[in-house]
Amino acid sequence: MIIKNIGCLVTCAGSYPKTKEQLKDAGIIENGYIVIEDNLIVDVGSGDGYKKYLKDDTEVIDAEGKTVTPGLIDSHTHVVYAGSREFELPLKLQKMKYIDILNAGGGILSNVTKTREASKEMLEAETKKRLDLMLAHGTTTVESKSGYALDFENEIKMLEVNKSLNKNHPMDVISTYLGAHAIPKEYKENRDGYIDLMINEVMPYIQEHELADFVDCFCEEGVFSVEEARKILKAGQSLGLKAKIHADEIESIGGAELAGEIKAVSAEHLVGASDQGIKAMADNKVIAVILPTTSFYLMLDTFARARKMIEEGVPVALSTDCNPGTSPTESLQSTMTFACFGLRMMPEEIINGMTINAACAVCREKEIGSIEVGKKADLAIFNAKNLNYLFYHFGVNAVDKVVKDGKIVVQDGKVSY
Amino acid sequence: MIIKNIGCLVTCAGSYPKTKEQLKDAGIIENGYIVIEDNLIVDVGSGDGYKKYLKDDTEVIDAEGKTVTPGLIDSHTHVVYAGSREFELPLKLQKMKYIDILNAGGGILSNVTKTREASKEMLEAETKKRLDLMLAHGTTTVESKSGYALDFENEIKMLEVNKSLNKNHPMDVISTYLGAHAIPKEYKENRDGYIDLMINEVMPYIQEHELADFVDCFCEEGVFSVEEARKILKAGQSLGLKAKIHADEIESIGGAELAGEIKAVSAEHLVGASDQGIKAMADNKVIAVILPTTSFYLMLDTFARARKMIEEGVPVALSTDCNPGTSPTESLQSTMTFACFGLRMMPEEIINGMTINAACAVCREKEIGSIEVGKKADLAIFNAKNLNYLFYHFGVNAVDKVVKDGKIVVQDGKVSY
Ligand SMILES: [Zn+2]
Ligand SMILES: [Zn+2]
Repeated sequence: MIIKNIGCLVTCAGSYPKTKEQLKDAGIIENGYIVIEDNLIVDVGSGDGYKKYLKDDTEVIDAEGKTVTPGLIDSHTHVVYAGSREFELPLKLQKMKYIDILNAGGGILSNVTKTREASKEMLEAETKKRLDLMLAHGTTTVESKSGYALDFENEIKMLEVNKSLNKNHPMDVISTYLGAHAIPKEYKENRDGYIDLMINEVMPYIQEHELADFVDCFCEEGVFSVEEARKILKAGQSLGLKAKIHADEIESIGGAELAGEIKAVSAEHLVGASDQGIKAMADNKVIAVILPTTSFYLMLDTFARARKMIEEGVPVALSTDCNPGTSPTESLQSTMTFACFGLRMMPEEIINGMTINAACAVCREKEIGSIEVGKKADLAIFNAKNLNYLFYHFGVNAVDKVVKDGKIVVQDGKVSY
Repeated sequence: MIIKNIGCLVTCAGSYPKTKEQLKDAGIIENGYIVIEDNLIVDVGSGDGYKKYLKDDTEVIDAEGKTVTPGLIDSHTHVVYAGSREFELPLKLQKMKYIDILNAGGGILSNVTKTREASKEMLEAETKKRLDLMLAHGTTTVESKSGYALDFENEIKMLEVNKSLNKNHPMDVISTYLGAHAIPKEYKENRDGYIDLMINEVMPYIQEHELADFVDCFCEEGVFSVEEARKILKAGQSLGLKAKIHADEIESIGGAELAGEIKAVSAEHLVGASDQGIKAMADNKVIAVILPTTSFYLMLDTFARARKMIEEGVPVALSTDCNPGTSPTESLQSTMTFACFGLRMMPEEIINGMTINAACAVCREKEIGSIEVGKKADLAIFNAKNLNYLFYHFGVNAVDKVVKDGKIVVQDGKVSY
């Protein structure tokens, strides 16, 4: 396959993870081309250098007037779940407190009940619909966390859904164990018992059956403390899982600092991250995964300090946080809008944050995240005459086509694999 | 045509314009049906009351699990224009002042130059693409303002585009003369000369050739003063045009008060509207057309006081403000998101504000804006199991089908007329 006459080819090439000034460079080539053989990129350039690869049966896509980026990477999602929570919306708009919403049958535990009850097949079918929507909006790789079951059997079921979808859906699905998403109600009076279950039973099983690459922990006031998070994540690391952490989503309790201390791959949310936490992340090249749609949806009237993080040298990535409670959206184009107008990040910084830096956040930077020779042919083709236009014209799906592993999987904004 | 088994039928029926408690009632029917003959609704109900209308050749749509609303009405747009302004985006993100953006070749006058240069055919073709996107997102009626030409010949050209598209595109296009959008550079030293041109030459021509229903004026510090707005709008009214006003978009200078005084049909933007202005609007039943995407896009960190307006009895409508400078989006679903999380309006209030109250803002409340017997069969069918879900699941186009004048014009979220 050859993609030619690309109005604006955004390669995101260069050293990684990208920080500071590197983030401002999206490796843009005008009038570009990409040559693909099987599932790999074999040449990238501008002008008519593609012509020497033309054969009789070469599939040629003319991308005149369009913007082509690496396939987007959604590096923080909770896309596997059962149960929707739209009934909470009017309650939130009337400023009902979270604790009262919990008492009205809402909150995360309502998803826990439904996710435990759901069969693996039903859970997989529901998740597949959401992956299709993601793909239709330009995402080709997704990180997917467990954490809506909070027991042995059903957390494993969620991770098996990840594994199965990674095999059966065009999207690459990267699996993260987030047993430490909340304390399940059976262990309300026995926190240590639940932590022991995760460390001594669930994680060894996950490791043995290759069900996850990462371990994650929701480190927040009222959820898991810094000490508990350290214990859980270090136990995971000693089993060979890489660490991620939900840190300082609302309050600053030292989650970002912990991420630096244990050399986590990434820390996520970070709305309340302290100056010291940001410095610890920069010093240890911890990726900051920022989730601006969640801040908006929570009506926090504040966003993570992305500009401060960039200034301090933290490599920033961006993600949807796709989940049924605080960010029910599959579209990274939504994230683009809020990263731009909420975080005041520049288009080049944002696209790097959804491609190469997001690849670093899921440890796949050698395979994906930029348009370079030898990388996988994962591409998003947008109806946008340049990169700024993609951010300027908001609220509509700009995807024309998506190429995954060298094959067209989205046509005219609709999945067609 | 019959639409049956409608999971959630949102009729928006009832007295209008809707204020206060009426706004909280969206006239929802569970398991509803709609019977359409030619372009009109002939029955609405729940259960199987539709069966008596079934004939051999009746087209039947099963809307199980879906939400059906009146076709959305976008009551404030600047959808006719030439020239895009994505190059301003990085400048705005770096907090460059508007005056410096103007000096860098940006701002409204860049559209004026390009719109004057564009042929009527080219302008119509560009606008048609935007109307298609609007339709694909559920909009069936659009108000469209002139105001990017600011001379006799080309303002008339813009209004002729409205008239032509109203005839040649499925969407109903309602035309508004907004010569008073800015002072053109030829009249920079002769404001009164431009006002005289509008009053004595342009508006009489418009009236004679039936090119607009409304006259509008951008009343804002540095644009047109309250005195100038009064003069222009009253002159339009005396010619039979109905008045709209861009009021208090940023500063409170008395635009809302003027709307009450001259009994304008609607006042729009209103981010800075004073308590007195809000009272004047309530007393005179002036529709407030609120444009929350514009507030977000301008990064104002503030939204219009929608809750205050509702409390005071102002009938509230919502619109995209679709335009190339401050709200480049065609999707009223985008407006839904910001009306919910930015204005803190409830789903029922928002859907009334995009249907029946928006119909009042364009004086078409007898024909459209609710699902009632005798009204036009303009409908949006959404992939949403209930009204809350439509707002909860954001950032993706929820439209399944759109029916306009009794015909399907959008299928699976794509125009198909
Ligand atoms: Zn999360
Ligand atoms: Zn306007």
